Amino acid sequence: MDQTKILLDENEMPTQWYNILSDIKVEPPLNPATNEPMDPKDLEPIFAKELIKQEISSEKYIDIPKDILEIYALWRPSPLYRAHRLEKALGTPAKIYYKNESVSPAGSHKPNTAIAQAYYNMKEGTERITTETGAGQWGSSLSLCCNYFDMECKVYMVSSSFYQKPYRKSLINLWGATVIPSPSTETQFGRKIREMYPDTTGSLGIAISEAIEEAALNDNTKYALGSVLNHTSLHQTVVGLETQAQFDKTEDYPDIVIGCCGGGSNLAGVALPYIRDNLAGKTDTRFIAVEPSACPTLTSGEFKYDFGDMAQQTPLLKMYTLGSEFIPPAIHAGGLRYHGVSPIISKLVSDGIMEATSYHQVEVFDAAVAFARSEGIAPAPESAHAIKSAIDEALKCKETGEEKTILFNLSGHGHFDMASYDKYFSGELSND
Amino acid sequence: MDQTKILLDENEMPTQWYNILSDIKVEPPLNPATNEPMDPKDLEPIFAKELIKQEISSEKYIDIPKDILEIYALWRPSPLYRAHRLEKALGTPAKIYYKNESVSPAGSHKPNTAIAQAYYNMKEGTERITTETGAGQWGSSLSLCCNYFDMECKVYMVSSSFYQKPYRKSLINLWGATVIPSPSTETQFGRKIREMYPDTTGSLGIAISEAIEEAALNDNTKYALGSVLNHTSLHQTVVGLETQAQFDKTEDYPDIVIGCCGGGSNLAGVALPYIRDNLAGKTDTRFIAVEPSACPTLTSGEFKYDFGDMAQQTPLLKMYTLGSEFIPPAIHAGGLRYHGVSPIISKLVSDGIMEATSYHQVEVFDAAVAFARSEGIAPAPESAHAIKSAIDEALKCKETGEEKTILFNLSGHGHFDMASYDKYFSGELSND
Repeated sequence: MDQTKILLDENEMPTQWYNILSDIKVEPPLNPATNEPMDPKDLEPIFAKELIKQEISSEKYIDIPKDILEIYALWRPSPLYRAHRLEKALGTPAKIYYKNESVSPAGSHKPNTAIAQAYYNMKEGTERITTETGAGQWGSSLSLCCNYFDMECKVYMVSSSFYQKPYRKSLINLWGATVIPSPSTETQFGRKIREMYPDTTGSLGIAISEAIEEAALNDNTKYALGSVLNHTSLHQTVVGLETQAQFDKTEDYPDIVIGCCGGGSNLAGVALPYIRDNLAGKTDTRFIAVEPSACPTLTSGEFKYDFGDMAQQTPLLKMYTLGSEFIPPAIHAGGLRYHGVSPIISKLVSDGIMEATSYHQVEVFDAAVAFARSEGIAPAPESAHAIKSAIDEALKCKETGEEKTILFNLSGHGHFDMASYDKYFSGELSND
Repeated sequence: MDQTKILLDENEMPTQWYNILSDIKVEPPLNPATNEPMDPKDLEPIFAKELIKQEISSEKYIDIPKDILEIYALWRPSPLYRAHRLEKALGTPAKIYYKNESVSPAGSHKPNTAIAQAYYNMKEGTERITTETGAGQWGSSLSLCCNYFDMECKVYMVSSSFYQKPYRKSLINLWGATVIPSPSTETQFGRKIREMYPDTTGSLGIAISEAIEEAALNDNTKYALGSVLNHTSLHQTVVGLETQAQFDKTEDYPDIVIGCCGGGSNLAGVALPYIRDNLAGKTDTRFIAVEPSACPTLTSGEFKYDFGDMAQQTPLLKMYTLGSEFIPPAIHAGGLRYHGVSPIISKLVSDGIMEATSYHQVEVFDAAVAFARSEGIAPAPESAHAIKSAIDEALKCKETGEEKTILFNLSGHGHFDMASYDKYFSGELSND
């Protein structure tokens, strides 16, 4: 019988994260007041010092603290799957593998960085963390992880997702945190947006502004971001490093590595260790970032300095952006509704090291259903973007007869997205 | 670092199921018309022949077909967890382990038998399977598994769960099956019940009657039951056999084995291989069946011959029962709302080999939240009954200082039960 899952034992888990800033250079964040590179000290009111240090570090490997490894062990190493049944359903000679990050308690890759951010904050005496969440994956993950260190957590959830995904809120409550819809009446910026756009369904950019405002105004409170920043990509590299150790147990090596891309963290997680090997001249892997046509940051945005939030409170980041004032339509892949993309992923796309592509949401749900009916797992709409791209690449192999090895990151399950599947099956899902 | 998960590779998966009917004798089902033991041939209109053969087999081990093993590999072997964090939260010297059956695509142990039942039906040319479902765990599992063999599947879902758990329906649709609330207007028995009890929230007993009626009236259609019958317990023994192989990799052996009990299949799955070892005089393990106080079949029912369904269409089974006309309150552990318990579990309880206990639903949710905040996973309300009992046993050890090893079966996750958690947190959950 061909193997379906490639497992690692806990003692085979990576004990260091890989820092791609040792191998590539991204342009520094700028202070918007001066247009000069940001002084890291200026970030201290909102971020833990150790995270700021990691954000600008050029060390190649950073040790994962033992306390974090112990919590990782609740769901890591995650299994690497060979998608035998999907291959057969497609009739492709390609080999399709997926890293299954849906196995964490929160159902996605997000706890990989949430636990690190909670840990370093706890070490530095933070009592309370604010954050934003789109689909709820990040908010629930941070709630889970703050719970482990007895810290309070308050989540500003993008209003469209707050009402589309009621049970992500329940999960946040289950782990003891607080969640409110954004824009809210609890911040100055939230009140302003509600006045200006009474019908808005919110955006990550708005929710970030609210969470930062609250952290900046309270001494015992810091802010945490689930994607975009360098340290979130750093923590996610545990995904790709594990995947490499798992492929070492097979006779295959990925020709193509695929991830969906909102802020970019799950894609960075699976791809960066492979990019390291490309940069070292050892391999020639292709990388594909997949985004929704409704929020086409990499495929239609501009590569320039822009704010990370709508209130223009953050440092300016050099990234692909649709403009910090962009409010994407309320598509069902809420986690991909962000106007920017991490500076690391942006740089890799700009340099031609990574490709980008986009899909409409109906074809993405077609792929999700094909996956669920072959591999069993009900995928998150975000992850279904990666599935769609993997299927397309596998179908190209069917035409050419090439036996390529395709790897994608199944960033999360869709158990809290079933209302979106209902809309798809009832034909109510639009492409915008 | 102490190990958190004990894993098995796919090639360590059991290749045979254990049949406890080789070691204990349960009284035979009776034909209600004659009160004589049922002729197996009489079951052929509704069950696949191979399943009837397994139902009455006294072979000690039955080979698991290769096609089933290949689909098991999508989620099996499931991990055995050491609940370090729960132990610490309780301050107990006990060691708590749980077998994590929530990792299947449907989120519970139910696919272990669903795939076997779908497979044998497919082999015998069945084109369509009807079934009932309580919480939706079984209905979604059978949908998933019928999909693998291109068979149609129609699910009669107990009305109270149909409306409490809307997204279990979506999952059934995702895997290509049909689901309707029971009592329905599509069967004679459903129409009768709706006339007699216009306000009923349904019951498993009613839904079973509807599903059997449809199978009996259609030549290409068979019926499948997710619990109670001997062959469902047989298929579930893969759980306990794996657990034993996993414990062999530790220095521990369970002193107490715990499972929640509705029809009894997840409890049978984890317990029967250990009972085999007790019966062989090798061990002296305690077994605890945990049920809801609102449906106290083992703790308050009678051990006698009774029907499995409300329409009194099934053979008479010798089991603990609250009466086939019993309609339990609409508690949130929908999978435990059944008037009977499998003849195997009933016999073990009657013989004093297994103990039974019951809990009210608020204390069960207290335990669920304690588990979610220590181990991360949001448990199904059904599984939370086992958690509650495990916690109580661990707290007894705290009093006595005993370092017992406690094993429970985490039969499923609660991702589709978040409305019940919402009610718990809002204080709306009653004890009935």
